[in-house]
Amino acid sequence: MRDFLPADKTRRERVLAVIRERYRAHGFDEIETPVMEEYSRLHAGIGGDNEKLAFNILKRGLDADAVRAAADEPTLDVAALADLGLRYDLTVPLARFYATHRAQLPSVFRSIQIAPVWRAERPQKGRYRQFMQCDIDIIGDATPRAEAELIVASLDTLDALGLEGGSIRINDRRALDGMLDVFGFAADERPGVLITIDKLDKIGPDGVAAELRERGATPDAVDAFEQFLRRPQTREYNPYGERQIRKALPEGIADEVVAHLVALGETVAAARGDAADIPLVFDPFLVRGMGYYTGTIFELAHPSVTYSLGGGGRYDGMIGRFLGQDVPAVGFSIGFERIVDLVSASVAADAASVVLVHDRDVPVAELLAHKAAFVASGTRVRLEQRTKNLKGLLERAANDGYTAFATVSAGAAPGEVEVKSLG
Amino acid sequence: MRDFLPADKTRRERVLAVIRERYRAHGFDEIETPVMEEYSRLHAGIGGDNEKLAFNILKRGLDADAVRAAADEPTLDVAALADLGLRYDLTVPLARFYATHRAQLPSVFRSIQIAPVWRAERPQKGRYRQFMQCDIDIIGDATPRAEAELIVASLDTLDALGLEGGSIRINDRRALDGMLDVFGFAADERPGVLITIDKLDKIGPDGVAAELRERGATPDAVDAFEQFLRRPQTREYNPYGERQIRKALPEGIADEVVAHLVALGETVAAARGDAADIPLVFDPFLVRGMGYYTGTIFELAHPSVTYSLGGGGRYDGMIGRFLGQDVPAVGFSIGFERIVDLVSASVAADAASVVLVHDRDVPVAELLAHKAAFVASGTRVRLEQRTKNLKGLLERAANDGYTAFATVSAGAAPGEVEVKSLG
Repeated sequence: MRDFLPADKTRRERVLAVIRERYRAHGFDEIETPVMEEYSRLHAGIGGDNEKLAFNILKRGLDADAVRAAADEPTLDVAALADLGLRYDLTVPLARFYATHRAQLPSVFRSIQIAPVWRAERPQKGRYRQFMQCDIDIIGDATPRAEAELIVASLDTLDALGLEGGSIRINDRRALDGMLDVFGFAADERPGVLITIDKLDKIGPDGVAAELRERGATPDAVDAFEQFLRRPQTREYNPYGERQIRKALPEGIADEVVAHLVALGETVAAARGDAADIPLVFDPFLVRGMGYYTGTIFELAHPSVTYSLGGGGRYDGMIGRFLGQDVPAVGFSIGFERIVDLVSASVAADAASVVLVHDRDVPVAELLAHKAAFVASGTRVRLEQRTKNLKGLLERAANDGYTAFATVSAGAAPGEVEVKSLG
Repeated sequence: MRDFLPADKTRRERVLAVIRERYRAHGFDEIETPVMEEYSRLHAGIGGDNEKLAFNILKRGLDADAVRAAADEPTLDVAALADLGLRYDLTVPLARFYATHRAQLPSVFRSIQIAPVWRAERPQKGRYRQFMQCDIDIIGDATPRAEAELIVASLDTLDALGLEGGSIRINDRRALDGMLDVFGFAADERPGVLITIDKLDKIGPDGVAAELRERGATPDAVDAFEQFLRRPQTREYNPYGERQIRKALPEGIADEVVAHLVALGETVAAARGDAADIPLVFDPFLVRGMGYYTGTIFELAHPSVTYSLGGGGRYDGMIGRFLGQDVPAVGFSIGFERIVDLVSASVAADAASVVLVHDRDVPVAELLAHKAAFVASGTRVRLEQRTKNLKGLLERAANDGYTAFATVSAGAAPGEVEVKSLG
């Protein structure tokens, strides 16, 4: 967990403001849920591996007997000690929120959640125990329009952050399932097979085939799949459209899955007004970790980095867990912690600002009148008493985002001090 | 704990944006700390009654033996079960932050913290277990300039929220202590006496005297104090200045305390450019609960409400608890949860927005092209398929902050649909 000093905090808030403004422009509505959810809800089996990483909240008013009873169970009864936990994602709380408030929401509900989540990860580079998520979700629309709205809004947000040229790697869980069917993997070995396929970019076809054999996957299926992986055309994905999607998949994938993917591309093209440049790349081996995905899955790519900057997918089954009635849903999450460092200083830049360096003998009343004059003119202002190390003082102010400075002596008229650029 | 639906969330974020912008304009720098602090730090005795209200985080990887050992202590050893907790205020984390990062901060550090805190309150009206705090603090300035900067920034923020006419009730813990000295209350009875004095507005002089007698406070001191309370001039506080402050206090209060309060008034007047209208009201019976205050204490008042909208004070001793070296500090917290409902709809109003009501047969590509045209022109847009209850649909959109609507049929040209005002 991290402290954020002024320069970092300013950048983070600016980037969040851009994301919020763009999401809202695209007709998404922001909601907020408490950081704590009930322990039982966080451990209902829909959070996948994240459930194990939840921070749990000790019950208030526990007595020694209750604690001893929890310890005396065959395995330690954590649910007897903790009744709440910090959310590890924003999807489980959204499903709970929607089930609670559905009557007050539009029939197609487009939500924004910009909020922190917590995971008790082992400390390692690039992994934080508290981090921001920026999620948009569309609940109540089973058509490719929902995916298209999410994708268009996400790419527009990336553009607004100065990160033009983003694209979407896309796949469909039903296409993945169909592929495993075609090659003859047994139902019970599929979760493991998917974990291995997910490593294709890292370990290549040889590595995937070797790992599948190690896992003891059905040998004929592994052989057929390896052969398929080695076809040259398997990883030629452009231009996006039916022909390439069909070519990238084995025979035997359901037509409706291909049709959904094709329609999605056409809708995105129409929304962006450029039929020739569809910013989608079909990737039949994209897996994404969460078990709750049921259809389209996607990741946000950008030429400046090799890792994904976000992603999401369709999870039509989850709302039903809370509501008792299935409602289609699809979500897209921008990887805020990855993006915030890529945004250039100019996008993250601040309003007009000035450091007012004053002599020790300037009366306080004069100083605050100078300050008030700047504030009234829309300039943010920091007072600093002159020190021997003026250079150091100004460097720190520049680092905190200040763009100009002025020196003030006793008797100067407010609003008439000379402002000089910093650096 | 509460969920916030779109209309509420929009209002909250707008109000937070105004507060953040005003605080920043006045030269405060925003920081952020993790929501969790170490258990031992949250229970070090500086959080007052709030320490008992902390939500504690269960240690990860506890085994049954460790839990049993905690239960077998003479009193349940919570510190053996919990290593972290959710912060119950922003002041303890700020002191820890400052002690950690002092070398990277300006010599006078003006911080903003806009963030939630948690207290395990019993459920009751107007008390929340998760609520926002908006704090500004100045660390490293022992002069009245610090209080003046906080007060000017806070009143300006209130103005920017459309709540003009705010004022500050002010007192000084040293004046309170001096008063208890003068009347002869013993040192060990003072915390209780202060708790009773804090009720003066509610129970009046009779009630205060009766409660002090019930408490068993020194009888002569109570008699003398009761007589003082009954003086008519005791609660005539205007205009703010030395004469009124002296008149409101008994004889024998240290000159330096009165001088600090007087200088503060003059500085605020200079900063606001109006020597005739000092927005301070001296109240010798203002107490404020926290034990860590060492000097000036204040509360934000507004004519529209009888309760305070925020407050703060000087806590020169606390940073030293973390740093091992005393550093002067003073803070002001706006009561966000109280203010957010007072802000008028016009201040909280949204950007241009339109609900696009479309027939069922409008092709998706056309719809998204319409949407894109509005988004490109700076108008936020929500798509809604026409229903029989069009009125209900538009009412809900208006409630969510949408200001206009348009109806779209198949074949209409993007950017050329007629927009009508909502309501």
